[in-house]
Amino acid sequence: MDFAIKGDILYSKSLNKVVEYDNSYLICVNGKSDGVYKRLPAKYKGIKVYDYTGYLIIPGLVDMHLHAPQYMFIGLHMDLKLLDWLNKYTFPAEAKYKDIRFAKKAYDIFVKDLTLTATTRFAMFATIHNDATLYLMNELEKTGFKGYVGKVNMDRNSPKYLVETTNKSIKDTLKWIESCENLKNIKPIITPRFIPSCTDKLMKELSKIMKEKNLPVQSHLSENRSEIEWVKELVPRVKSYEEAYDMFDMLGTVTNSIMAHYVWPDENGIKLMKNRNVWVAHSPSSNRNLSSGIAPIGRYLREGIKVGLATDVAGGSYLSMFRAIEDTITTSKIRNCLYDSEYYNVTIEQALYLATLGGGEFFGKVGSFEKGYEFDAIVLNERDIPTVLMSELTLLERFERYIYRSHTNVYAKFIAGKKIV
Amino acid sequence: MDFAIKGDILYSKSLNKVVEYDNSYLICVNGKSDGVYKRLPAKYKGIKVYDYTGYLIIPGLVDMHLHAPQYMFIGLHMDLKLLDWLNKYTFPAEAKYKDIRFAKKAYDIFVKDLTLTATTRFAMFATIHNDATLYLMNELEKTGFKGYVGKVNMDRNSPKYLVETTNKSIKDTLKWIESCENLKNIKPIITPRFIPSCTDKLMKELSKIMKEKNLPVQSHLSENRSEIEWVKELVPRVKSYEEAYDMFDMLGTVTNSIMAHYVWPDENGIKLMKNRNVWVAHSPSSNRNLSSGIAPIGRYLREGIKVGLATDVAGGSYLSMFRAIEDTITTSKIRNCLYDSEYYNVTIEQALYLATLGGGEFFGKVGSFEKGYEFDAIVLNERDIPTVLMSELTLLERFERYIYRSHTNVYAKFIAGKKIV
Repeated sequence: MDFAIKGDILYSKSLNKVVEYDNSYLICVNGKSDGVYKRLPAKYKGIKVYDYTGYLIIPGLVDMHLHAPQYMFIGLHMDLKLLDWLNKYTFPAEAKYKDIRFAKKAYDIFVKDLTLTATTRFAMFATIHNDATLYLMNELEKTGFKGYVGKVNMDRNSPKYLVETTNKSIKDTLKWIESCENLKNIKPIITPRFIPSCTDKLMKELSKIMKEKNLPVQSHLSENRSEIEWVKELVPRVKSYEEAYDMFDMLGTVTNSIMAHYVWPDENGIKLMKNRNVWVAHSPSSNRNLSSGIAPIGRYLREGIKVGLATDVAGGSYLSMFRAIEDTITTSKIRNCLYDSEYYNVTIEQALYLATLGGGEFFGKVGSFEKGYEFDAIVLNERDIPTVLMSELTLLERFERYIYRSHTNVYAKFIAGKKIV
Repeated sequence: MDFAIKGDILYSKSLNKVVEYDNSYLICVNGKSDGVYKRLPAKYKGIKVYDYTGYLIIPGLVDMHLHAPQYMFIGLHMDLKLLDWLNKYTFPAEAKYKDIRFAKKAYDIFVKDLTLTATTRFAMFATIHNDATLYLMNELEKTGFKGYVGKVNMDRNSPKYLVETTNKSIKDTLKWIESCENLKNIKPIITPRFIPSCTDKLMKELSKIMKEKNLPVQSHLSENRSEIEWVKELVPRVKSYEEAYDMFDMLGTVTNSIMAHYVWPDENGIKLMKNRNVWVAHSPSSNRNLSSGIAPIGRYLREGIKVGLATDVAGGSYLSMFRAIEDTITTSKIRNCLYDSEYYNVTIEQALYLATLGGGEFFGKVGSFEKGYEFDAIVLNERDIPTVLMSELTLLERFERYIYRSHTNVYAKFIAGKKIV
């Protein structure tokens, strides 16, 4: 069923360039964009038109990193740094997902709430538990989302109640990948929690599975200074934390990779991150809440490292990608102001790009309204915004104003041409 | 009309101490708190009870600094630093309030939106225009708010379209103070914009008026490094920006004073700020948006400087004091992490104190539910929060979770015993 949506259309062409089409039509053919038109072309005569006249329409937002099981305690326990926070709050919470009844209850709330947000694509962590992870994937699939979910692997330095033997971790991973073969839109992603949680043997096996099954990989990299010191102790033979993943081909040399955070690059390691299929999942809320720092996004963009944005629920304290955009901009200014002046501020144009095309390219042709891109679109409701100046604003200015208004939900949402909200 | 409200009641006793009374009654007698009770005491039998069972009730939040005329462009133009931002966006916007028709339209939206928020008390800037300022004050008075509004003074270094002669600035100030004598709850506050905008002669006269009429004063202090350099050039005879106000007795030596921002204290000047009736209005959103920095709140509290929180609309990009609380906590962590380790993190307990009692004491007995405090209360709606864990949470944890959920509005609001929402 082909259709059009009508409204004020804004999207990124490239990092610094947006295009604006006010009061125009965006065409969907077979789940893909067929372009934007000021008037409905004759060949589309008679197709259904969703009329959002006066509403702002942008590509769906891409959340490159979040932990679904942690949503149950979002906004709580923001008083510790990473390693203590994991041990005191996060690991006990994740352990509860061994109980599938608990998992169903918690994941039902998570999927319901995520559906209403601006997020259309994602790469998320589940827990080590196969049953709960498969339940989450099936619920997301039913809703109409497209994205990646990872069963987590952890076989060392983890509490007794949330750890696997190396063999069981590998066996469960293979079984899990097999069990989700029937899913069309929600796909598995190899997910070693982070170097401290995974033995070399486990990493080697996961790398093998990644290659054999041609699956992408996601993990955490250089989030917190104490964590980085710990990795140096755990893997003394590598020169950097980056190398500890690269030795297992997990920095985008074989399949696509997402590394969350990357707040503190190593001068040796950063060379490994350049011009590869590895995305930094920038999580400004989480990095602030856990006193980790502010990632030098401006530098990464200059150096040719791919960047997408992320909420990192529940180190991040919101599910809203609008706030991830806001915080990307504002934290970049603070880093510039307090820490290093060579770093440059992220602009509103750049932040829109990062939240759409920047992360979207991990998923294929995603994040733009150019012809041939998957039809991921969200419609924004600006009705609660002071309107004295509305008529004087460009679409980008309307987007800027919207971003700063603490929104979570959208007025309408389409994923690959399917209307979800 | 005396009454009670029933619900889960939380408030600050002191900087580090909160008290929690679940499912209890808070009594209002003559617009003041008569205490919190687990059961309704016999002497109140028959009074009206507003039943908010299961809802969280806290003291109203105090916004120590915002610019009412700037609300019309909130969330826009966040791409410049202070002095350029003032000249390019803010001054042209404020100039529009010369036209009372425009002012009415814009202030009507502002007052309507502010009414729905958690804010119960405030100290705000208007513009240099008497008519528009009086309109704003009357509208706020009608709504039931209590607080201070300042007609702004500026007689130098200002654009032609937004400047006063020294004499007109003084004359208009006297006339304005006289015109608002009939207002009961909205009071005038002396408001030199900041040192760069006010000649010594104007400052001297404003100081005289402040003393003769026994009025409080508000201004901006040490927000941005370029601004501080500029003040050094403009007032070469003082050792610090702080002293440039102190020489006119505007740092709380004669009447109460609010100094917004104070991001970069001077080691000489900070001595002048201690143990006086001067409040720092901490505006973390604004200081981030305009790349000003992060004020060392932890240090101020240790040194005996009073602190309240502020949105600073529209350098600040939200009207919600909930977000000012969130940002006070999160920016304190970032300063600690990137800039100076001697600075300590602001906790959720401390942030609640600063947003209620911290600023509240500027207004008298405000910011607490202890007997004798003015009855300013807000009721929070937690219904959109994931509830898996709700039953296990303390009231402070529920408050923490609420703060991180990007809320703006409240479920109910009372100011000095009057129900506003």
